[in-house]
Amino acid sequence: MRIPLDRESPTPLYSQIAAFIRTGIESHTLPAGMRLPAIRKLASELGVNRITVETAYAELEAAGLVAARVGSGTFILPPFPAYIAGKGGHDILSPDGISFRNTNDAPWPHWQQGVLDRFSHLPAKPAIPLNTHHPDTHIISLNSGNSDPALFPLDEVRASLRDTLRQEGTAAGEYADMAGYMPLRRTISHVLADQGIPAAVEDIIITSGSQQALALITQLLTVPGDTVVIEAPSYADGMDLFRVRGLNILQIPMDAEGMRADLLEEALQQHAPKFIFTMPNFHNPTGMCMSGQRRRQLVQIAAAHGVPLVEDDFVGDLRYEGHAQPALKALAARGACFYMGTFSKMLMPGLRVGYMVAEGPVRDLLIRCKRLHDISSSGVIQRALYRFVSVGRHRTHLARSCSIYRKRRDALLEGIAAHLPHGITVAPVTGGLFAWCTLPPDLSATALEQAAFKRGVAIAAGTAFFLNPAEGDRFIRLNFTPHPPDVLRDAMRKLGEACNDIQKGGAA
Amino acid sequence: MRIPLDRESPTPLYSQIAAFIRTGIESHTLPAGMRLPAIRKLASELGVNRITVETAYAELEAAGLVAARVGSGTFILPPFPAYIAGKGGHDILSPDGISFRNTNDAPWPHWQQGVLDRFSHLPAKPAIPLNTHHPDTHIISLNSGNSDPALFPLDEVRASLRDTLRQEGTAAGEYADMAGYMPLRRTISHVLADQGIPAAVEDIIITSGSQQALALITQLLTVPGDTVVIEAPSYADGMDLFRVRGLNILQIPMDAEGMRADLLEEALQQHAPKFIFTMPNFHNPTGMCMSGQRRRQLVQIAAAHGVPLVEDDFVGDLRYEGHAQPALKALAARGACFYMGTFSKMLMPGLRVGYMVAEGPVRDLLIRCKRLHDISSSGVIQRALYRFVSVGRHRTHLARSCSIYRKRRDALLEGIAAHLPHGITVAPVTGGLFAWCTLPPDLSATALEQAAFKRGVAIAAGTAFFLNPAEGDRFIRLNFTPHPPDVLRDAMRKLGEACNDIQKGGAA
Repeated sequence: MRIPLDRESPTPLYSQIAAFIRTGIESHTLPAGMRLPAIRKLASELGVNRITVETAYAELEAAGLVAARVGSGTFILPPFPAYIAGKGGHDILSPDGISFRNTNDAPWPHWQQGVLDRFSHLPAKPAIPLNTHHPDTHIISLNSGNSDPALFPLDEVRASLRDTLRQEGTAAGEYADMAGYMPLRRTISHVLADQGIPAAVEDIIITSGSQQALALITQLLTVPGDTVVIEAPSYADGMDLFRVRGLNILQIPMDAEGMRADLLEEALQQHAPKFIFTMPNFHNPTGMCMSGQRRRQLVQIAAAHGVPLVEDDFVGDLRYEGHAQPALKALAARGACFYMGTFSKMLMPGLRVGYMVAEGPVRDLLIRCKRLHDISSSGVIQRALYRFVSVGRHRTHLARSCSIYRKRRDALLEGIAAHLPHGITVAPVTGGLFAWCTLPPDLSATALEQAAFKRGVAIAAGTAFFLNPAEGDRFIRLNFTPHPPDVLRDAMRKLGEACNDIQKGGAA
Repeated sequence: MRIPLDRESPTPLYSQIAAFIRTGIESHTLPAGMRLPAIRKLASELGVNRITVETAYAELEAAGLVAARVGSGTFILPPFPAYIAGKGGHDILSPDGISFRNTNDAPWPHWQQGVLDRFSHLPAKPAIPLNTHHPDTHIISLNSGNSDPALFPLDEVRASLRDTLRQEGTAAGEYADMAGYMPLRRTISHVLADQGIPAAVEDIIITSGSQQALALITQLLTVPGDTVVIEAPSYADGMDLFRVRGLNILQIPMDAEGMRADLLEEALQQHAPKFIFTMPNFHNPTGMCMSGQRRRQLVQIAAAHGVPLVEDDFVGDLRYEGHAQPALKALAARGACFYMGTFSKMLMPGLRVGYMVAEGPVRDLLIRCKRLHDISSSGVIQRALYRFVSVGRHRTHLARSCSIYRKRRDALLEGIAAHLPHGITVAPVTGGLFAWCTLPPDLSATALEQAAFKRGVAIAAGTAFFLNPAEGDRFIRLNFTPHPPDVLRDAMRKLGEACNDIQKGGAA
């Protein structure tokens, strides 16, 4: 194969080789099924290093254009069609006797349309990607649901992983107990007891993050067509999960004390929901805490109607001021409330370890569902976490995080006061990750989201958190935890400019 | 608190303290809500080290009997009822003002019964636990679905994890790309291309093991009440997954070439299943490979009826002899076949990383379902795997595993020939993990499973792999990969004795 190479070009030689062959394949000059020259042979013909040809072939493989087969060489694969419909398609036989179906320009199988239709009620994905830190470092991301990765105890986790693999050998790499690594479950029961939440070790189930806990509980308690109750607004990925399950979602508005008890009572008289999903501490997206009084009412109403509670306590221990209210789990009768927690916010999201407390006969079914979802969560990670997490360490890490995040919250609130139009109000932020702002009537949240992004700030419009997105267009959610105070002040200055851009635009 | 301590006793002092308090709590001498003495005070009273009292309190906390609350001490919690129904229950107020509902002897919430009823069609869990190595080292486990953890490349994985955390810092601990870490997906596309399976990088989705891939595909393609087609016999955890989803399962019998094409054709004329789930290579539980002819028929029949294929290739590359047949994925039209693979069998199950190939518009929906299941698989583990896995390393590890497992298979077959009754036949074992044996009419698999366990060998009765368990009582599945040849010969000697035990018992 004679490939013209430009040795003066800034394009590396391997790229030139790969590009030449790619053009040949795409123009059908080089037909599917054809064997590419042996690496040594082509390298010698072109006067290049073998590695150069190898790299070129590897790039073509990664692009799905060729396939290497042991002992017989590298073959050109039939091209992949783009996502378009067409017709045709026939079999071809590669030189080593393997038949490939050539689907160039073939339509996608008809059943795919049916699947798409079944999911057509899912809302569109957010226009601005949710990153803790945006890949473009000029963008300040305030729209994610995560705390600051720079605070994660990386060195300690690394040491724990190292010790786990060194000292526990292959046992660490085998499947774990389906309900989770027992010593870690014991530690979690201590951490929970330290927060006043009673949980027997055997009732604690380790999950791959608390999203999985919610997915499993949903599978356990509902079938499609069932109704569930959530707050208005609520966690967007939770709502999507319920939509995918085919559930009927009832959103109960919140007041300053949390989910409104009168409206909940009314709803339960008319519907028989399968569970009530709530985030009583530093709620997502509003950042609000449910009052002690409201917690007791909620537990009582749920019990009176025989409806299970699902309590998501994703950052319950990240408190900047005031006193903790008891968890619903601590107030409810045993077996009446599922409690979900996570290490993602406090330690590292990338570890993907959460947990739930599930009591009563349904507990074992939940463990069985977990097995059917992913067999078990990573035993290696669970053992490493066990080595790292203790009640004392958890408290220390928490105290440090609280002290840092409190300053960031203060900077954000100062920035809002200094730079945003007066009509904007902020719900009390006594802990957690979020400041929830109500916009004046002349500002649309979706418009502000776009304008702010142009100014270099990613914020979350409230629309994603309501069943009826229009209800959320008066709100924005700002996550202040991933950035130091000066960045947050700068972000509020830019957000103020974005408000100006819109209000001027509207006036003009 | 005066606690009598026996300093001569082999029971540690902390255990004696914990036991004393536990007895007090359980007999209600020490009432719920009571504060335990401060650690320093009790230690001084008893003349023991503070650590001793701390350890005792920690043990009580782990047992769910007491809870420590920062700054206010350790309190006795209301006792947990056993799993029994009863009546009563009233509120108590702990000294620091937190109200606990005393649910002693209270019945479980009524809705729990409804959930249990909904899952009552699930088969009972296996009587003998499935371990790769039984915790009792005198038991030889042949009943698991895993290969030998001793062959896992532990040191290399450890080094990769170390380098990942050292060099990639906090990025490794953040949430990963929802579809998986891009460089790892690229490597997987190379590994697949090396096996003749065309897969574009963007169509590869990383999952938390291949069980999750199956769970996601099931969620994508079905709603409760739908029908799916599987082989008879088939993968037990797959069948359970379909049962939990509320699906109608059609099992198509196999012959020596795989799932019977005539019966499949017949079934598809009468039903409109949402997918066909198949394991063409070293099938679980039979260990059989589908013939090339049958693969082409299967692809053709599925296409003619517009039914997607779901191909589980869990150990497709672990071949001891003969030639590989093309994957269904390589034969089917683009977008017509989901392909699932895993690193669990070849590397370490505890890493929980698998992958699937999904083409067409449904791919993005599948990634979205994945997000709703567990946000993403562990980024730390994915990055470490990327560092470890390359086409060359994969081949090397495979070659080594094949050479070791081939000897083990030979030892098992020798052991069967030497020690088991003549009426037992074994399906061809050309690769994978399993030998599938048909028993003579006078041997029941469930009886043999029990008898073998008494003799120290755990085997899997065929009953778990059939919709109608009775159909499986003529078969047993033996996983020969976790044990060296001499252990396998010994296991077959014991299994022969177990056969004898039954046949004698039957004759007596």
